[in-house]
Order: sequence, then C-alpha cells, then structure tokens
Amino acid sequence: MPDDEVQIRAVITRWADAVHRGDLEAVVADHTDDLVMFDVPPPHEGVRGTAAYRAIWPPFFEWLAQGATFEIDTLDVTPGAYVSYAHALLRCGTPEELAARPTLRLRVSFGLRKERGRWLVAHEHHSFPHD
Amino acid sequence: MPDDEVQIRAVITRWADAVHRGDLEAVVADHTDDLVMFDVPPPHEGVRGTAAYRAIWPPFFEWLAQGATFEIDTLDVTPGAYVSYAHALLRCGTPEELAARPTLRLRVSFGLRKERGRWLVAHEHHSFPHD
Repeated sequence: MPDDEVQIRAVITRWADAVHRGDLEAVVADHTDDLVMFDVPPPHEGVRGTAAYRAIWPPFFEWLAQGATFEIDTLDVTPGAYVSYAHALLRCGTPEELAARPTLRLRVSFGLRKERGRWLVAHEHHSFPHD
Repeated sequence: MPDDEVQIRAVITRWADAVHRGDLEAVVADHTDDLVMFDVPPPHEGVRGTAAYRAIWPPFFEWLAQGATFEIDTLDVTPGAYVSYAHALLRCGTPEELAARPTLRLRVSFGLRKERGRWLVAHEHHSFPHD
C-alpha cells in the first residue's frame, strides 16, 4: 500500500476513534481551517470553517456517551500526490437502532489535501440513506 | 483557473445538465466502471458499478419530467494532478417544494480520477440534510 494511502487511512481511523471517545481536540486535529462539512442535520449550506466544525461535536458526543456505536466498517481511499478522496461506511447508532436495522450504515465521503507533508481533511459529507 | 479545474467543472456541469434533461448516455458518459455512489435512497452499501448506476436514473428522470428542477447552485473543485474532489449544492425539487423550502439544497460530493488524460467521476455522494 503506498505511503499516502497508509497516512490517509491513519488520519481517518484516528478521527473515527476520537469521535467515538468524544475527544474534540483529536477530532479537529487533522482538518484544514477552511473545511466544508455536509452534516446529517442542517445547516443547508454546510458547516464551514473550524469554529463551526468544532461546535457540532459536543451534542453528538452526548448522544454517543449513552452507549451508541461509531465504528468504521469499510474505508476506500483513492490517494493522489497532494489531493485525495475517500469514502467509508460506518456502523452508527444505539444498540437498539443497530439491532433493528443491521445493514444501515452512515456514509461518509472525505476530501483531503496534503499541506507541508501532512494529509488534512478539507471536506466531509455525512448522510444516512433515506429509506 | 488551472486547466484541470476547468475540465472538472465542465464534466460536472455537463452531468447536471444531462440529469435535468433525462439523457442517460450523457449522465453515465464521464464515469469510471468501478464507480461507487451513495444515493439519497438505499441500497445501504451504495450503488456500485456502471450497470447499477445506469439503473437508478430512469425513475428519477420520470420525477424530473413532471417539472422539477435539478440545477447547480454552487460548485467547489479541488483539483490534483490525477485525483480530485469537488462538492456542490444543487436546487432539486418540484416548484412547490422549492417554494416551501427555498434554502434547501441537495448536497453532492464527487471523487474524480484522471485516466488517459480525461477526468472521470469515480465517486458520488448525494444527500439532503435531515431536518
């Protein structure tokens, strides 16, 4: 596996682990200042910039702390020299939700840029399929 | 604007125009055979490969033919040498839906690869925010 793919997989895996344990500094660590995130809820125009991105996580951490799962199932990375993208399927839900809909996945797409030798997430798109 | 960005904007703009007029051959034209699409509806694991991607469009074209809009509002492209990503906000809905929720946007993320000098879409992620 090429180095860039290894580094990107490490960035995304660390991010998902940090989300699961509610570690805000680790969640935001490997992101650009100008990131654009399309989150599951509004705002319709997306979550733009570090301050807005930081603000979405604490309520989500509270929900996770009740015993919910946030875990990568599959992760596909397409590495470039200084721009890459990736897409992942995650198990995300309470034990009751995961039992009721075992195949449901949170879909996350990532856009990444390499800056000063480091891969950073500049775009995230999170959604559940609309049954 | 660098050439790669111009070419990618042209690919995505042509695709959106082709969706709006229901031209299936033009919709699928600039896509890789191994594309992975996270669509608004299931399947949970994503729409994978050309045959599955072709199959989703005819029912959507029928809905659009009733007078619905499918139009790019904003498009941001991050071009690399042979891998790029982009994200867009689109007006997508019937006149009644757009009047009722004027700020609502379809969010679409794209992953692209350059193959034999041509930019092709290898990943699409479509979703509406979950109000």
